[in-house]
Amino acid sequence: MKKTALIMAGGRGERFWPKSRKSLPKQFLSLTDDGRTMIQLTVERIRPLVDIEDIYISTNRDYKELVADQLPEIRPENILCEPVGRNTAPCIGLGAVHIAKKYDDALMMVLPSDHLIKYQKMYLHALKDACAVAQRDRNLVTIGIMPDYPETGYGYIKFRPEETDEGAYAVDGFVEKPDLNTARAYLETEEYLWNSGMFIWKVSSILHNMKEFLPDIYDGLCKIGEAVGTDRQELTLEKVFPQLESVSIDYGIMEKAKDIYILPGVFGWDDVGSWLAVERIQKPNESGNVVKGNIITIHSKNNIIQGGQKLIAAVGLENMVIVDTDDATLICDKDSTADIKMVLENLKICNREEYL
Amino acid sequence: MKKTALIMAGGRGERFWPKSRKSLPKQFLSLTDDGRTMIQLTVERIRPLVDIEDIYISTNRDYKELVADQLPEIRPENILCEPVGRNTAPCIGLGAVHIAKKYDDALMMVLPSDHLIKYQKMYLHALKDACAVAQRDRNLVTIGIMPDYPETGYGYIKFRPEETDEGAYAVDGFVEKPDLNTARAYLETEEYLWNSGMFIWKVSSILHNMKEFLPDIYDGLCKIGEAVGTDRQELTLEKVFPQLESVSIDYGIMEKAKDIYILPGVFGWDDVGSWLAVERIQKPNESGNVVKGNIITIHSKNNIIQGGQKLIAAVGLENMVIVDTDDATLICDKDSTADIKMVLENLKICNREEYL
Repeated sequence: MKKTALIMAGGRGERFWPKSRKSLPKQFLSLTDDGRTMIQLTVERIRPLVDIEDIYISTNRDYKELVADQLPEIRPENILCEPVGRNTAPCIGLGAVHIAKKYDDALMMVLPSDHLIKYQKMYLHALKDACAVAQRDRNLVTIGIMPDYPETGYGYIKFRPEETDEGAYAVDGFVEKPDLNTARAYLETEEYLWNSGMFIWKVSSILHNMKEFLPDIYDGLCKIGEAVGTDRQELTLEKVFPQLESVSIDYGIMEKAKDIYILPGVFGWDDVGSWLAVERIQKPNESGNVVKGNIITIHSKNNIIQGGQKLIAAVGLENMVIVDTDDATLICDKDSTADIKMVLENLKICNREEYL
Repeated sequence: MKKTALIMAGGRGERFWPKSRKSLPKQFLSLTDDGRTMIQLTVERIRPLVDIEDIYISTNRDYKELVADQLPEIRPENILCEPVGRNTAPCIGLGAVHIAKKYDDALMMVLPSDHLIKYQKMYLHALKDACAVAQRDRNLVTIGIMPDYPETGYGYIKFRPEETDEGAYAVDGFVEKPDLNTARAYLETEEYLWNSGMFIWKVSSILHNMKEFLPDIYDGLCKIGEAVGTDRQELTLEKVFPQLESVSIDYGIMEKAKDIYILPGVFGWDDVGSWLAVERIQKPNESGNVVKGNIITIHSKNNIIQGGQKLIAAVGLENMVIVDTDDATLICDKDSTADIKMVLENLKICNREEYL
């Protein structure tokens, strides 16, 4: 069956401030050594599995040009722009009706645009296995990540440990971000995986489930889908999409549907959730510093320093995150990266939009 | 007797990098809240005591325009430019022969251009007292600073604790920067003051002493002095000054001459020796941060943050010095400010002159 992909690139992540901005979120940044942006890496990664004309990017209207600039190989009609953000269920539904217009039915891989994968081949194997499971009946398949530690920032997925034929496990339920003790308990049971936000299903399967669990959204999507390819396409999207309920695919479908399967993904996944991730994905030097740009370090160790042209001299520093951009510099203790959001709150309160 | 002043502004201090540069040393920077530079404050400070036409600035040729720009009230012929640096004895001698050309004899106050004085009136009182002592015989007078703590970065002056009529003390000797134990011992004797680098004498007294202790320099200075005001002035300076021995006034004269007196100066002196001085001279906010510029601090205390237009966000920082300029940013632990010179050494080794 035809394989297609929907790459979700509408996010406005703030955790990479000051490099990420409202006008340039994380998926459009390069955080690796090789200079390619996260969305470029995401597209490249699935190219062996999906034809370029079958790769769709869903994004916010504001990022249409960024997507077109960074991904000139993606067909313009495959860049799906939401007039407003309505969370993942309408976003995925929009992708589904576009694909349904093109193919009677097809496999659809839903992929975040701002994660990193270390082992490409193992990743493709996992997606292929997921496709095999998704092709059967109305299975909804997700990739789960083996937890390293009791992370409280991710959702978890409980599965039944009896393996099926295809190496998949039946899913018992999706759970929201747990507190630390709950997360620890999850790890001890060995029946929970991290929710990666990657989903694989047939277009017909997800639309069937939408009809059942999100009938209003489904109706709206049908109207939008009918107009695709006509001169009413834009207008219909403009009119109908904003009326759709804002709901996540996890809450709207995955927590309710039957026949959900999970495949454990073991391919060096990293959600690159904060500046601290940079030392996992870029190589620290012999002093433990991860530096990029025009940097001099004196008696400094275990720092993340990301700059550009401007000279940054770090003297006697330890465990710091320093990020320099043209108009703003962040200097943050590694233990305080969660407080970066307070800088943004402060900027919002003071109406300093230019820095957001 | 006519009072004149020679303000020495040839220094190339590196301890305020990256704000101070070879092309803009400390004396030309503003480090206080009011925006005036240190040399501007120095001139202003002595104006009640010295007529503007009797204030001389000695500086390096490279800083001639800086001096003229920052001190438009100083007469161009009073800006004395050394073709090359030859330490303080030739520098002071050059000032002396210029003043000797103008007045038969005059009092000459030699003042550094990069110190701060908190109590202006008490400072002027001290200088007046020093002038009274200097006017008598061939006395050489210096202002000593009451030591707060056993500083190892200053020279010390030993005096005899029997007060003379004018409140001055006879000097026993000048000593170089001591080690910590020696400095502690000095403080215990209560017979040592810090060497402030301020000297007061008659022009005739210092020239007399130069003739005795630095005869070669004296001969050169006489040649330079003879040419002052003639069309040979520039050429003679160019030819003779570089040949003068490079020697400090402390070593060349003060450690050898007789009739040296010291007046204890109690007027809130600060030599502003490093970035740490900024928290003594600018007012810290309620979190103990001394900030200047476009700064947001989150959970940060006791930092010195000096920026400009660019936004600096400090998150979870303690006891740091952060200085942002157009082309370079310093981020330094307060305990490591002595290592800033290593940044400059690194830049020199790498021939990155643009940052020096």
